[in-house]
Amino acid sequence: MKDKGKSSDGNCADLTRADRLGRMLNARSVAVVGASDDLRKAGGRVVNSLLHNNFPGKIYPVNPGRETIQGLDCYPSLEAIDDEIDLAILSVAADDVPSQLRLGCDCGVGGFLVFASGFSETGSEGAAKQAEIARIVQEAGIPMIGPNCLGVMNGNCGMLASSTVVMDGRKLPAGNYGFVSQSGALGTYWLDMSMKAGLGVSSWISTGNEADVDLATCLDYLVEDEETEVIGLYIEGVRDGAAFRAAARKAFERRKPVLVLKSGRSRQGATAAASHTGALAGEDETYDAVFRQYNIWRADSLTDMANQAQILLTQPRSPGQRVAVISVSGGAGVLMTDAAVSEGLDVPDFAPETKARLAEILPGFATPQNPIDLTAQIVMHKTMLREVLQIISDGTGYDGLLLFMGGLSQIAEELADALVSELPRNMPCALTWQAAPDEAVQKVRERGIPVYGEIHDAVRALAGQFRLGAGWDGPVPAEAPPIRQSGRLADTFAVEHRSKDFLCGATSLERPGGVFVTDPDALTKAGPALSAPFVVKLQSPEMLHKSGSGGITLGLQSVEAAAEAARSMIESASARGIPVDGVLVEEMVPFDHEFIVGLRCDPVFGPMLVLGRGGVTVELEPDVARAFLPLDAAQIEDLIRSLRAAPLLAGFRGAPPCDVAALARTVKELCDLYQRDETLAEIEINPLVVDRAGRVVALDALMARTRDGSAGDAP
Amino acid sequence: MKDKGKSSDGNCADLTRADRLGRMLNARSVAVVGASDDLRKAGGRVVNSLLHNNFPGKIYPVNPGRETIQGLDCYPSLEAIDDEIDLAILSVAADDVPSQLRLGCDCGVGGFLVFASGFSETGSEGAAKQAEIARIVQEAGIPMIGPNCLGVMNGNCGMLASSTVVMDGRKLPAGNYGFVSQSGALGTYWLDMSMKAGLGVSSWISTGNEADVDLATCLDYLVEDEETEVIGLYIEGVRDGAAFRAAARKAFERRKPVLVLKSGRSRQGATAAASHTGALAGEDETYDAVFRQYNIWRADSLTDMANQAQILLTQPRSPGQRVAVISVSGGAGVLMTDAAVSEGLDVPDFAPETKARLAEILPGFATPQNPIDLTAQIVMHKTMLREVLQIISDGTGYDGLLLFMGGLSQIAEELADALVSELPRNMPCALTWQAAPDEAVQKVRERGIPVYGEIHDAVRALAGQFRLGAGWDGPVPAEAPPIRQSGRLADTFAVEHRSKDFLCGATSLERPGGVFVTDPDALTKAGPALSAPFVVKLQSPEMLHKSGSGGITLGLQSVEAAAEAARSMIESASARGIPVDGVLVEEMVPFDHEFIVGLRCDPVFGPMLVLGRGGVTVELEPDVARAFLPLDAAQIEDLIRSLRAAPLLAGFRGAPPCDVAALARTVKELCDLYQRDETLAEIEINPLVVDRAGRVVALDALMARTRDGSAGDAP
Repeated sequence: MKDKGKSSDGNCADLTRADRLGRMLNARSVAVVGASDDLRKAGGRVVNSLLHNNFPGKIYPVNPGRETIQGLDCYPSLEAIDDEIDLAILSVAADDVPSQLRLGCDCGVGGFLVFASGFSETGSEGAAKQAEIARIVQEAGIPMIGPNCLGVMNGNCGMLASSTVVMDGRKLPAGNYGFVSQSGALGTYWLDMSMKAGLGVSSWISTGNEADVDLATCLDYLVEDEETEVIGLYIEGVRDGAAFRAAARKAFERRKPVLVLKSGRSRQGATAAASHTGALAGEDETYDAVFRQYNIWRADSLTDMANQAQILLTQPRSPGQRVAVISVSGGAGVLMTDAAVSEGLDVPDFAPETKARLAEILPGFATPQNPIDLTAQIVMHKTMLREVLQIISDGTGYDGLLLFMGGLSQIAEELADALVSELPRNMPCALTWQAAPDEAVQKVRERGIPVYGEIHDAVRALAGQFRLGAGWDGPVPAEAPPIRQSGRLADTFAVEHRSKDFLCGATSLERPGGVFVTDPDALTKAGPALSAPFVVKLQSPEMLHKSGSGGITLGLQSVEAAAEAARSMIESASARGIPVDGVLVEEMVPFDHEFIVGLRCDPVFGPMLVLGRGGVTVELEPDVARAFLPLDAAQIEDLIRSLRAAPLLAGFRGAPPCDVAALARTVKELCDLYQRDETLAEIEINPLVVDRAGRVVALDALMARTRDGSAGDAP
Repeated sequence: MKDKGKSSDGNCADLTRADRLGRMLNARSVAVVGASDDLRKAGGRVVNSLLHNNFPGKIYPVNPGRETIQGLDCYPSLEAIDDEIDLAILSVAADDVPSQLRLGCDCGVGGFLVFASGFSETGSEGAAKQAEIARIVQEAGIPMIGPNCLGVMNGNCGMLASSTVVMDGRKLPAGNYGFVSQSGALGTYWLDMSMKAGLGVSSWISTGNEADVDLATCLDYLVEDEETEVIGLYIEGVRDGAAFRAAARKAFERRKPVLVLKSGRSRQGATAAASHTGALAGEDETYDAVFRQYNIWRADSLTDMANQAQILLTQPRSPGQRVAVISVSGGAGVLMTDAAVSEGLDVPDFAPETKARLAEILPGFATPQNPIDLTAQIVMHKTMLREVLQIISDGTGYDGLLLFMGGLSQIAEELADALVSELPRNMPCALTWQAAPDEAVQKVRERGIPVYGEIHDAVRALAGQFRLGAGWDGPVPAEAPPIRQSGRLADTFAVEHRSKDFLCGATSLERPGGVFVTDPDALTKAGPALSAPFVVKLQSPEMLHKSGSGGITLGLQSVEAAAEAARSMIESASARGIPVDGVLVEEMVPFDHEFIVGLRCDPVFGPMLVLGRGGVTVELEPDVARAFLPLDAAQIEDLIRSLRAAPLLAGFRGAPPCDVAALARTVKELCDLYQRDETLAEIEINPLVVDRAGRVVALDALMARTRDGSAGDAP
């Protein structure tokens, strides 16, 4: 990406997808097929947008019926242009798209942008049309954004290659914030929000139906792009999970922040998303796991995203938890402290020397404590803010600074000057300014200070900055293996005793002492080696979940009682026509900590570990963590400690602690097994318990092979 | 409050505090003692504010050295004014306040406003000064707001009796939103937020140090005030809990919404609040309980408060949960659905006839489902929004409407017209408009449609509207009994067996079968009537919490084992010098549901029930509800069902349900006992268990008498 303007190199074979996208986003020559003088038409608006944003490149309107368009010479066709075209915009009807693409491919344009709708979003006929246009550009090796997209923009070279009306009368500011949107409309709202937050835009891409260029390709481009320092994404559904994970991994490696707004959090939302763009449905928790693993910050809203981008673009990105709070109003200082604590931050007391120095500056009745109350005296005592900031810069024991200003238009200039010159440089700072004059906000923003209108916004942004900083402190996630797009579909599940035979044989996972018998009478022979109490479980391929269906009896005090229970269980099952393999009789294992551990393969993002606290009450408020393979034991330990139950595992109020390291080791073996053996579709150990000796025992287990692997009942 | 202008009636003895405040807030004549031409001084700014907001009443500047002030005739003293003064503003130094108050009292002014600081906020000397000025006005029966306050405002009569600079160059709009603030600065930020949200202000009161008029009095006034339809409060600490509860009860009775921003949610925040205004510290959960009980809506921020006020002031206040969603962008519709679901709302499918009618209107590729996607076609198809709104107005199966608009400045006028004429009238509606032109927002707001810039704000406001509506559906809370300001301070606690003797004797609360013995040998006599297993508990006034201190042994299988455990427990205690009353031996009770039930008296708000789910893991994530007495059994049942554990109590996944009615009946008896017997300081039953037969059993219990009641060890 060193020489982004190398448009004249054409389509060299060694150019990456990101390089090719870079040529489009940094185009020096743009052709608009379907250009118009009519600003109500997309082909009119895009020419107008290019003309009125100081785009330094060449604009070639193409329209066979016209001599000039909006004062520019007009060309009858792409072929008629005697220049290399970096970006060819097709603002023509859906039916005309294939022929124009072919023409463009013949001319060797750098890339296409297709506005037209009428493709996969309209049904199967449209989907066929879309497949056709994808084939045309992919055969030629020329990237296409769209169809059904709103275009691309680059604030740094004034290129607004978009048909949106939201930019009417506005210039796109230059900057370092890049954005990719799977919804054109949301993309325009993002523009509005970002500009209102004073942010400049390096790249803006509306991906539309993603017939060729998809979200992951654009993410990869923005990670490579040196002008983009913070990346925002609006996601409805990721098509290529492996490419997305690879790009996200590269972003992590370079510590380049990625912010995402993902729709479809609720089930109802997800249904609507699937029918909206035909994107692949992905469970929301799966996305959450991907985002967490790659240190991607998930926003609640576009506002939230703009808030986080403001601080990321201007402030140090270090981990931390402790904040100093400075406020011009005691009440606001308390509200800021409340907000900080609710975001998991600490507002620690100051060191004695800091307090002593503050006491010399602050008005007599303001206590030198954290939060610092500058009081209304700030108006009279004009150097107070400056002096307090110097003391805070010198002090230690906090990792960030929260400031609150309110009103004070009469001294806004002095305040901004003091902030700019004295704000600590070695820690992130966030400022809330309520009832602020617009000029004051603009002034401090111009000088690189993130400023918010509401206390919660500043606090949440600072907390996010700390969390991202902490995330990057960890190791770079391992490279993802190739992902089977089938998601390893399960055939039938193996019964418990066979699942345990396999899983406990292949790993150090233990199982309770016990025997599998087809005839209960055989128990009296095997029995003496076992100690009561016993559990008896029916082994039937048609009764994989035994609770509540008469397939399990607990707490049997003798081998005889177990045999009796086994007989009655088999009889009852036979009477109901349920096939029976036999019964599993096991010793009941005393334990303190109960988990569920599962491995499955997400069709988009690949093999995934699901690990949660077990027990029936947990079903009310699930306590589950997810992560994608490959994982090492340390990462699995972190995952376990991320559960809400973590304090219980450490030995809560005198209760026995859990040997988390032993658990992590065994889970790692299961993960490796699942990753190695691609015929495994699904593994679920529920409950998996850990006793005081650190034994990791499967009380129950289920597994399935893939449809193309071995049959389920013969692992 | 029928004739608010009756200033000439003077201080009639039958005027309520609210009437007297009303005279100040609707003053026809205002005197400003310490008036000035200098706008840098409070006495200059307040005259200027009164002059430039079309205040129709008379303004009398008072300053002995001047002929005129800001063009008005100036008077040497209050006495020199030949008119009834409804409001006397004292903008003089703290030391001059007492003499000016005396003068004002002699003149019979309607009320005082005192700006000066230098009172209780500065320490004990200031507190003494404050007590003196309070005595002066209270002896005369004339209300005083302040000292250390920013004044009062009334947008409906253009009275800005305030020294704030935030209103410089702005006029306060008339309206129906009233506000009381315990922080002057926060009050000014509220003004800015409210005006930006297009809200008009009926009353604005900065209460300052509350030497005389306090928050509760102001709340009562705003409840009575016919011009105030929605009330906002900023609270640092309530001084008079009984008065606050009485005013809140009156607001509930009249279904007048009260919104509150309360600082000090975190412990760190609470510490700072206490030192900020010297307000009484109140545990945050206690405030939460008061707010919930009186259907007061707790805001997270001033923005949040303005958002909620917008919808409350314009839309029907009905309970509900189901919403229809209409959006001009598929992506935004999904995000709105996500937000609705995360706020506990449903986005149900439409009825077949609604779908059929929508299918005729919507563009071919938009599915007629909820959320409705109008698509970009709305620009071409100008009557689409109108037609869709008509269909939604006719349809059933939803209780509210969420709308999303984005950009569309080119058709803002038509959209506003369609919204105003076709929005359903029988259910609350909230609109998000992103990238909106300011004029469009103003236009729809003027026509009574609440409009927000972010999806979450609209959804949260609608959810709040529903919740408040549901809250008012319940019975009006009972009148609160007088509150002992001591909070019934506890003397010593009674030991378990005595606490059980008293509590189980006075109510239907049960206790496990068992005996109290001073000599373990006596157990063999009493033993045969009891069934193993047993628990043995040391009864010592110096070991009230027995777990972890060797004072309890569980699971003893015989009377002999119990006697042995008792002997060793007594010996060990004696060896450590712990006084021993004896031991309590009880049968272990099998149970399914475990609670903690406590009764205490909050020094501000009075007798309070605390009821939570028991068990050690709950300590990680407490599940507790609180409410103030008096409570009836139905209210207690509601409280129990408000626990997060409610599904467990109903019988979760085949587990046995809890007899909630039986639990509520017993808790009601305990509440009545606590309320009747004012010598009871505290009762705590932990654990209290409910078995399958609905028996409500105290496994452990503690109680304390008040210091002025009987001794703790003789209940």
